[in-house]
Amino acid sequence: MRQRKSSATRSDPSRAVAFSDAIIAIVITLLVLDLRPPEHEPGGLLKALLNEWPTYLAYAASYIYLAVIWLNHKAAFTRIREMDRGLQWANLGILATLALVPWPTAVIAETARTGNLTDERVAVALYALVGALLCLSWLVFFSHLARHPDLTTDEVDDSYFARERPRALIGVVLYLAAGLAGVLIHPLVASVVFLLLPVFYGITSHGFDQRPSLLRGTNDDNFGSDRLPGGG
Amino acid sequence: MRQRKSSATRSDPSRAVAFSDAIIAIVITLLVLDLRPPEHEPGGLLKALLNEWPTYLAYAASYIYLAVIWLNHKAAFTRIREMDRGLQWANLGILATLALVPWPTAVIAETARTGNLTDERVAVALYALVGALLCLSWLVFFSHLARHPDLTTDEVDDSYFARERPRALIGVVLYLAAGLAGVLIHPLVASVVFLLLPVFYGITSHGFDQRPSLLRGTNDDNFGSDRLPGGG
Amino acid sequence: MRQRKSSATRSDPSRAVAFSDAIIAIVITLLVLDLRPPEHEPGGLLKALLNEWPTYLAYAASYIYLAVIWLNHKAAFTRIREMDRGLQWANLGILATLALVPWPTAVIAETARTGNLTDERVAVALYALVGALLCLSWLVFFSHLARHPDLTTDEVDDSYFARERPRALIGVVLYLAAGLAGVLIHPLVASVVFLLLPVFYGITSHGFDQRPSLLRGTNDDNFGSDRLPGGG
Amino acid sequence: MRQRKSSATRSDPSRAVAFSDAIIAIVITLLVLDLRPPEHEPGGLLKALLNEWPTYLAYAASYIYLAVIWLNHKAAFTRIREMDRGLQWANLGILATLALVPWPTAVIAETARTGNLTDERVAVALYALVGALLCLSWLVFFSHLARHPDLTTDEVDDSYFARERPRALIGVVLYLAAGLAGVLIHPLVASVVFLLLPVFYGITSHGFDQRPSLLRGTNDDNFGSDRLPGGG
Repeated sequence: MRQRKSSATRSDPSRAVAFSDAIIAIVITLLVLDLRPPEHEPGGLLKALLNEWPTYLAYAASYIYLAVIWLNHKAAFTRIREMDRGLQWANLGILATLALVPWPTAVIAETARTGNLTDERVAVALYALVGALLCLSWLVFFSHLARHPDLTTDEVDDSYFARERPRALIGVVLYLAAGLAGVLIHPLVASVVFLLLPVFYGITSHGFDQRPSLLRGTNDDNFGSDRLPGGG
Repeated sequence: MRQRKSSATRSDPSRAVAFSDAIIAIVITLLVLDLRPPEHEPGGLLKALLNEWPTYLAYAASYIYLAVIWLNHKAAFTRIREMDRGLQWANLGILATLALVPWPTAVIAETARTGNLTDERVAVALYALVGALLCLSWLVFFSHLARHPDLTTDEVDDSYFARERPRALIGVVLYLAAGLAGVLIHPLVASVVFLLLPVFYGITSHGFDQRPSLLRGTNDDNFGSDRLPGGG
Repeated sequence: MRQRKSSATRSDPSRAVAFSDAIIAIVITLLVLDLRPPEHEPGGLLKALLNEWPTYLAYAASYIYLAVIWLNHKAAFTRIREMDRGLQWANLGILATLALVPWPTAVIAETARTGNLTDERVAVALYALVGALLCLSWLVFFSHLARHPDLTTDEVDDSYFARERPRALIGVVLYLAAGLAGVLIHPLVASVVFLLLPVFYGITSHGFDQRPSLLRGTNDDNFGSDRLPGGG
Repeated sequence: MRQRKSSATRSDPSRAVAFSDAIIAIVITLLVLDLRPPEHEPGGLLKALLNEWPTYLAYAASYIYLAVIWLNHKAAFTRIREMDRGLQWANLGILATLALVPWPTAVIAETARTGNLTDERVAVALYALVGALLCLSWLVFFSHLARHPDLTTDEVDDSYFARERPRALIGVVLYLAAGLAGVLIHPLVASVVFLLLPVFYGITSHGFDQRPSLLRGTNDDNFGSDRLPGGG
C-alpha cells in the first residue's frame, strides 16, 4: 500500500455524500412532475387517466432504478474513508449520468403512447445508451478505488472494489446488447430487459460474492440492494 | 430478542433520514409550482386569481398532509437504531407513495374548476387510491419494525411498532371507504373526508395509546404530530 | 421557569433545521425557472431579453428577501435547544408562507409587462397579503418561544423572543399599509416599499436592540441579517 | 491578527455549507429539465433527438462548470472556521450568480438551433456577463476573507485568500474579453472560450501557486478542482 498523501487535495467524503443525496433525491422527485392532471374532454377523465399508463410504468421503473442506485451509492460510500480529486470526478460522473435516467424513460413512455415502431426502436436504443453510460461511470468509479486502496476504510479488503469491476462491465455489455436486440428484433424485448435488469441484478447480487453461502444464509433480507444496478 | 446480525447489510439511518428529508422537502415545495400568474384578459387579474381557489385549497391541504407525514416520519426514525435492506425498501416505498400526493390533489382541483360530476367521481377515487396506498406503505414499514425489534433503539417497547399497525390498517380502510362514498354518494363527501382525515387523526392520535390519560395530561401541545396520518 | 417536560413529544431541532434549509434552498432556486430563453423573432433576442426586465428585478428582489429570511431563520435556531409540536407547526407555518413569496412576485412582474393599472393594483395587494402572512407566521413562532423559555438555549435571555414580537407585528402592519397605499394611491408606491422593506429592516435591525450602542459599535459587518425581514 | 469578536454575529459555517450544497445540487439537477421527449412527427424521433445536440452540449458544459464551482466552494470552505454577516452575504452572492448559469447556457443552445447570427452575438454577450458576474462574486468572497483572517482555520496562511484574488479578477477580465470577441469577431470564438475556460483553469490551477513544484509533483490527481473556475 502506498504512503498516505498530504491532505491538501484530499477530503473526507461527508460533503460529497450530502451533495450526492441531494442530487439523487431531486432526480427521483422530478419524476412526479410528469404526473399531471391529463388534458381531457368533460366526462373523459377516467379514459385520459388510463391512457397515461406508460407514464405510471415509467415512474415506477425509474423510481426503483434510482432507488437501487442510491442504495448502491450508500453501500460504496460506507467503504470510503477519503476522497481525492479523481474520485470526486468519478462520483460527479455517476451523478451526471444517473440524472439522465428520467429522460430516456420519458421518451420510451412517449413512444408507447403514440405507437410508431420506428420511434420505439430509437427510444430503446437511447435508453440502452444511457444505461450503458451509467454502468461505465460505475466502472470508472470502482477502477479508481481499486487502484487507490488508501482511499478506503481499513476494514475493506484491498480487492473488494477490484471485484466490483466485472459487475459494472457486464452491465455495459448487457445494456448495449438489450438496445441492439430492441432495434433488430423488437423494442418490447429491450423494454422487458430494461425493467428486469435492476430487479434481477438486485436479487442475484450475491452471485459474484466470494464468501461461502453458509455464512450468507443467515441474511433473510436478501434484496441485494448494496450491489450495482445492471452490473452483476 | 434475536441476536444482532453482522453489519454487512446493516447501516445507521442517518443517510436514509437525510435522503427522506430532501425528498419530502422537494415534494412539499413543488406544490407551489402550481401557483402561477393566471392567464387573464387586461383588467381581469382579480377574477382570474379568485377562480384559482381550488388550487389554493389544494396547496393548503397537500402541505398540511405532507407536513403531518414528515412529522410522523421524524417520530418513527427517532426510535430506529439501525436499518436493514427490508426497512430501506419499506422507507423507499413510503417516499414513492407520498411523492404521488400532489398529483391526485391537482386532479381534484382541476375537476373542481371544470365542474363535471363524472370527472369529480374519478378524481376522488384516484385520491382515495393514493391515500390507501400511502397507509399501506406505512403498514409494511411498521410490520417490518414489529418483526425486527433489534432494529429499534433500546428505549423502545418491543410492542411499540406492533401497536402502530392497526392505525395504518384503519387508514387503508377509511381512504377506500371515503373513495367509495365519493363515487356512490357524492364527490364532496369524499373531499371533506380527505381534508379532515389528517387533521382528525392528528387530534385523536392518543386514542390508541396504552398509557393512562393522567400521565398524558401534562402535554399541552397535543397536536398528535408524531402519529400516522390517516391511520388512527 | 417551568419544569422540563418528558422528551416523548420533544426533539432536538437538527432535523427541522435540515428540512427548513432544503425547503428554503428549493424555493430560492425555483426562482431561476422563470429565467428562460424568451420567445422572439429572428434577430429580436436583444429586445426580447431587455423586455424581461421585470423578471430580473423580481428574481433579485425575491432572492434577497428569501436570503434575509434564511439568515433570520438561522439566527433564531441557534437560540433553540429543543422543539415541541407547537414550535414544529410554527416553523412549518413559516416555511409554507415563505414558499409563497415567488408567486406574488411573479404576478407583479407579469402585470409590469402588460401594464394594466387595475391588474397592477391587484398584484400589489396580493403581495402585501403574502408579506403580512409571512410576518404573522414569524409572530406566532416568536410568541410560542416567548411562552416556552424552556425550549431555548441557556445563554438566551428569557425576554429575547418576547422582544422579537413587536418587530414581527410591525411587519404585518407595514405590509398591509403598503398594499392599501398601492391600491388607493399607486401600485408603484407599494412596489418601492416591498423592495425597500427587507433592505431597510436589515440595516435598521439594531433599532430595537437593548444593548448600548458603544458595545455594538465594534461590529463593522452591520447587515442586520439575523433580524426578521419586514419586522423591525 | 485581530482580536476575536463576540460570537453574537458569528456562526460556524455548517449550515451555510448545507444550504449551499442544496442550492448547487438543485441548480445542477434542474439542467436535466431541458432534456424532454422532443416534439416530432411519427417516425421522426431520431431526427428530432439529433436536432437537440445544442441542448446536450449545453447540459454537459453547464454540468462541468457547476461541478468545478462546487469543488472550489468545497475547497474554500474547508479553510473557513467561522462566518460573519459579510461572508454570509458574499456566499449568498456566489449562489445567486451560479444559479443564473443554466439561463445564458440555454439561450446559447436556443440560438444555436435557430442560427441567427445577431441573436448568437447577443447570447454570447449575455453568457459573458453572467460569467464575469460569477467571477466578481468570488472576488468579493476572497477579498472579504483576505481582510478578515480571523475567519479562517489556523492552518491557513494569512495570505492564502489574498493570493486567490488575482485569479478571480483575471476571470472577470477574460469573460468580458471573450464576450467582446464574440460580438465583434464571431460568436463561435466566445463559445469555444466559454467551453474551455473551466477545463483550462482547472488544469492550470497550480500556475499561481507559490509552493515549489517539487513538492507539488507528488500529486498525480492534478485536476485543479479546488481552484476558482475561470479565475486563474
